[in-house]
Amino acid sequence: MECAMQQSHGDDSQGFSAEEKRGLYRAIYERRDVRSQFLPDAIPQALLSRLLSAAHHAPAVGFMQPWDFIVIDDPALRGVVKRMFMRENARAATNYTGEQAVLYHSLKLEGILDSPLNLCITCDRTRGGPHVLGRNTMLETDLFSVCLAIQNLWLAARAEGLGVGWVSILAPEELAQLLGLPAHVYPVSYLCLGYVREFLAAPELQQTGWRERVPLETLLHHNRWGTAMPDREWWGAYPRRQDATGGKEST
Amino acid sequence: MECAMQQSHGDDSQGFSAEEKRGLYRAIYERRDVRSQFLPDAIPQALLSRLLSAAHHAPAVGFMQPWDFIVIDDPALRGVVKRMFMRENARAATNYTGEQAVLYHSLKLEGILDSPLNLCITCDRTRGGPHVLGRNTMLETDLFSVCLAIQNLWLAARAEGLGVGWVSILAPEELAQLLGLPAHVYPVSYLCLGYVREFLAAPELQQTGWRERVPLETLLHHNRWGTAMPDREWWGAYPRRQDATGGKEST
Repeated sequence: MECAMQQSHGDDSQGFSAEEKRGLYRAIYERRDVRSQFLPDAIPQALLSRLLSAAHHAPAVGFMQPWDFIVIDDPALRGVVKRMFMRENARAATNYTGEQAVLYHSLKLEGILDSPLNLCITCDRTRGGPHVLGRNTMLETDLFSVCLAIQNLWLAARAEGLGVGWVSILAPEELAQLLGLPAHVYPVSYLCLGYVREFLAAPELQQTGWRERVPLETLLHHNRWGTAMPDREWWGAYPRRQDATGGKEST
Repeated sequence: MECAMQQSHGDDSQGFSAEEKRGLYRAIYERRDVRSQFLPDAIPQALLSRLLSAAHHAPAVGFMQPWDFIVIDDPALRGVVKRMFMRENARAATNYTGEQAVLYHSLKLEGILDSPLNLCITCDRTRGGPHVLGRNTMLETDLFSVCLAIQNLWLAARAEGLGVGWVSILAPEELAQLLGLPAHVYPVSYLCLGYVREFLAAPELQQTGWRERVPLETLLHHNRWGTAMPDREWWGAYPRRQDATGGKEST
């Protein structure tokens, strides 16, 4: 990670050390969606608090903070969620045939009972009143804010040595009823949390051959969809100084 | 940040140093939604690539990777986006009256032209075919995945000394048309990127008194919505060992 550039911009005192940057990038690249490697060990309260606080400091449209956190450790309740998963997963499995069906059935897609703790992160769609700043053209930005909080928690968990798995194969209305959610609260995410035996070197769906990583360069566009990115050393000076100097000049 | 706990769980070699953890938490707590502090300096291509790669390594439902990145530096195009924002923002302002209206009008809510680079992050809702693993009960998990990618980029930008601002006051259908998006591609997020004069000590909407941070403890529930969290030192051992020993025993 280079950090030389940063020193010529803004306030130096706010810069990150090389090791601090590495910590952030490690969390991003070594984070996994954990299903199979959970250990049953309990999670210290202080650690759980750090994760929830990290989530709570995510960006939110209009500072809405629409999230709530339901910490679930009741084994009976988790048993019900597991059965809800099994029914929806059996239904999902019928979408696949042949080798893909064999592979699908071989995949473990949740750690609801193996992990020591489950966590439902919800979105209160009425928080902040009828007119949330910035939430006028895209009403789903409240749900999006909750997702940003989830990623904060996921990365913090990785840095703390905890795995997280997102169980998306649940019917949200059924989950909402089980957890007693008010009608205006949506269960965005059902997570499993716990220490792990190991973090896999690559995403499990990649390792098992379910799907490859898409090459990043095929996902880039310049100004309009479908226009290739030009080769440049610098991007976006306004006015674009590098265009006038052959793309070599530092700002 | 304590890290003693981690050493008794799983594979030590994957643990984070105290400084690496601090880097992750700094990015989380010192990240801001930047509107007013952008510097015009160009962004090195290598840095932009690191940010896009960080986004590309977010979790995605069924390893779908539904995101695309439209890097926007054309001043004319950004001028059009700015005018789109101004129209929608004028409409949004009519939602407020009295002091709130005065405050709303005083807020700067975008850095479309002040920042050197804009970035539209989209969701291809058809990527991976008709049956994406894990996306059967909640079809919006593709959009959620894109949000996780956005937060990766946002945090990486902070660690690199770059500010990011999310401009949500745009009509998505109008933005999609401007950028030439296919019908199956949704513009989840329009971001402004750039070096900054400073990162504010607190979120701007909090500093200006628009809205307070909600106390985290009011957002926590135990097993069911509305049930208070008990006071404990450990959470979720399964079977719950701490319950048998008065909550003091390490696992």
